[in-house]
Amino acid sequence: MYSIKNHVLHVEEVSTAQLAETYGTPLYIYSEAKLMEQLDEIRASFLDAYDDTHAAFACKAFSTKYMCRLLEKEGFWLDVVSGGELYTAMSANFPAHRIEFNGNNKSIEELTMALEYGVGRIVIDDVSEIELLESLCKHHDKKVKVLFRITPGVSAATHDYISTGKKDSKFGIPLNEEVLYPAIERAILSSELEFLGFHFHVGSQLCEADTHQAALEVALALILETQKRFNYVVPDLNIGGGFGIRYTNQDHPLHLSAFVKPIMDRITDFCEKHHIKRPHISMEPGRYIVGEAGLQLYTIGNIKTIPEIKTYVSIDGGMTDNMRPGLYGAKYDAVVANKADLPKTFKVDISGKCCESTDILIKNIEIATPERGDLLAVFSTGAYGYSMANNYNKLTIPAVVIVKGDQHQLIVKRQTYADIVSREL
Amino acid sequence: MYSIKNHVLHVEEVSTAQLAETYGTPLYIYSEAKLMEQLDEIRASFLDAYDDTHAAFACKAFSTKYMCRLLEKEGFWLDVVSGGELYTAMSANFPAHRIEFNGNNKSIEELTMALEYGVGRIVIDDVSEIELLESLCKHHDKKVKVLFRITPGVSAATHDYISTGKKDSKFGIPLNEEVLYPAIERAILSSELEFLGFHFHVGSQLCEADTHQAALEVALALILETQKRFNYVVPDLNIGGGFGIRYTNQDHPLHLSAFVKPIMDRITDFCEKHHIKRPHISMEPGRYIVGEAGLQLYTIGNIKTIPEIKTYVSIDGGMTDNMRPGLYGAKYDAVVANKADLPKTFKVDISGKCCESTDILIKNIEIATPERGDLLAVFSTGAYGYSMANNYNKLTIPAVVIVKGDQHQLIVKRQTYADIVSREL
Repeated sequence: MYSIKNHVLHVEEVSTAQLAETYGTPLYIYSEAKLMEQLDEIRASFLDAYDDTHAAFACKAFSTKYMCRLLEKEGFWLDVVSGGELYTAMSANFPAHRIEFNGNNKSIEELTMALEYGVGRIVIDDVSEIELLESLCKHHDKKVKVLFRITPGVSAATHDYISTGKKDSKFGIPLNEEVLYPAIERAILSSELEFLGFHFHVGSQLCEADTHQAALEVALALILETQKRFNYVVPDLNIGGGFGIRYTNQDHPLHLSAFVKPIMDRITDFCEKHHIKRPHISMEPGRYIVGEAGLQLYTIGNIKTIPEIKTYVSIDGGMTDNMRPGLYGAKYDAVVANKADLPKTFKVDISGKCCESTDILIKNIEIATPERGDLLAVFSTGAYGYSMANNYNKLTIPAVVIVKGDQHQLIVKRQTYADIVSREL
Repeated sequence: MYSIKNHVLHVEEVSTAQLAETYGTPLYIYSEAKLMEQLDEIRASFLDAYDDTHAAFACKAFSTKYMCRLLEKEGFWLDVVSGGELYTAMSANFPAHRIEFNGNNKSIEELTMALEYGVGRIVIDDVSEIELLESLCKHHDKKVKVLFRITPGVSAATHDYISTGKKDSKFGIPLNEEVLYPAIERAILSSELEFLGFHFHVGSQLCEADTHQAALEVALALILETQKRFNYVVPDLNIGGGFGIRYTNQDHPLHLSAFVKPIMDRITDFCEKHHIKRPHISMEPGRYIVGEAGLQLYTIGNIKTIPEIKTYVSIDGGMTDNMRPGLYGAKYDAVVANKADLPKTFKVDISGKCCESTDILIKNIEIATPERGDLLAVFSTGAYGYSMANNYNKLTIPAVVIVKGDQHQLIVKRQTYADIVSREL
């Protein structure tokens, strides 16, 4: 997706210098070719390799009408986690029956929206949601398909903050007998709910398959137990997402098939062994689809050298458009975009524009000798950048541009100063 | 500012239950009486106690037109750190000559705005800003008063992320002879700049005065050295902000006078001893003014008990409206607002609504037995809550309400779903 011409980094056929001139900086840039490559990979490793499957894009990674339209056209589903993400999908005319609604605390208003639009599945995250959802279904004369998100009690080998499958988790229904089985029975017997089965999500940015596999064992045992106890054939299993991507050359993500194949093989074996019909299998990749397809472009301003200590290279954005370094200590790679093939001999910290010490985007990175007015391109910023963007320091949220071949197009307009005070009375 | 009537927490004379019903939740609530109390304290400890002083509100803590208007009326200044904060101030008709412009990477567009509006001071953060500012002044035929933010090289006894006075800092001009003195000389001799003196800011949420005092020694030595080397009487000294507040009963903030009195006494002594005219002294409190005046109100949804482990109480907001627990591990106190005087016998974690493990607002807090639909009030949320709010998970940014006696008034409208997709094409 990247090339260098006349020292300038290009996204597909388009010069980053030209994009900066056309749209200004900071700027979020996405390569449509890379997005398509990721979708193709999901097809090759999962959708086309196995019957009776679907993949839903986890919108929280980059919820925009553009993504909804692209995924609709490409036959994918959406995983939404709020009324706002559902609203965005419906604004883009996404078919509701291909939407799954997740979330640890869906409001009555959101569940009502989901029922009225007719979403494909609601993923129940707490046993109290069963009664709530039944009463809303009765009130609105609707039926709905549900899965149970379970807490499989396995630990993911990743940052503590982004590991969601542990036994102590705000997400999912705990496996305790006295909690889980009465809930399953109720959902099976419910006149309002159609119980589809189980959902798990074990963590984010995973570069090993073992956590998925451990959680799968828990889910398979549950499927078998549900059949035994309630004589109920579980029709669905959602294996979540969390497939790691490459942020820097320190990351060694697995090929998607290395996650998928052992899971699918094990499911097939297990079902054959126990004479169970293999359930429909779904997954929810988010970062995997958009992460590496995104690039952030900044303009370099002050370059501050503290003798014998460090040089800080300031950019015109930072924690307001990419919260992950501050929030998770996330690492990124970057290049001076207009000096993309010059020797990287200058070690610096990239400091954001915010009046906040936290706002250091990258520490100890070697780049070409920077000057005020140069462009800095930060790689693999397609996930959780725009979606976590904020107006701290009353900085405006950058524009988002999609590149396709030699074409480029604005998909989200830059916020203006007038926008950021528009709700103030 | 708080009282309890019929078990319900009241802000001044207004019931939180009534505010929730009128404006919905999540909701940011501010007590005007508490804001006025803080301004009065700054007057008593600083402005009225010493001649030739001013205090500028650090807008980044809570930049809104409402605050600009209140501070204008009360005779305070503003400290802005971006074009957006400057725009907000000017939209509220704040007098530009009472505005200071800070920031480690002011853009040409922002500096131009500042010159055109005629801000009172620009705080230069990097030596390269001198030349940039001179050329902009020439181009726009303006003059401007400047201070130098220095990096005093002292460490603040606070969280690493929010300690900004260390020698290795993205903020300020380092004290190295070969960097600092040529810059001072240039500013003194400049036809475009009027050199006012020095600015330091040593950290945030400080509950000890020693860091300010250590930095003060550095600044005083600089003032003396500047007079000696350049025969220049330094007219101004800005001692920054960072005065701690009470978030929970674990915090023991100093009375403001405990910061101010030793500083002012030391300045007086130093100036008398060295026969220097005492400079004009200014400060930049942000959190100190708004932090304790703010309350966040949420509605409780799912209550999830993991047997023998923990109960999670989910609320309808979280890291989207208060990033500090996720970002800094910040601690808060809270109460079930409609059961405010009932026994706090139930130990829980308060989990936010975001599909993110990080989104735990408060860990291990004892509250009255919670039920779905109860209100949760979180205290001391006036600083860096609204100002860091974001649309992660496409949650909408809450409304902001000011309470004054038995009156309440919307000062920022709640975002709508339509708002959050309004810039998407």
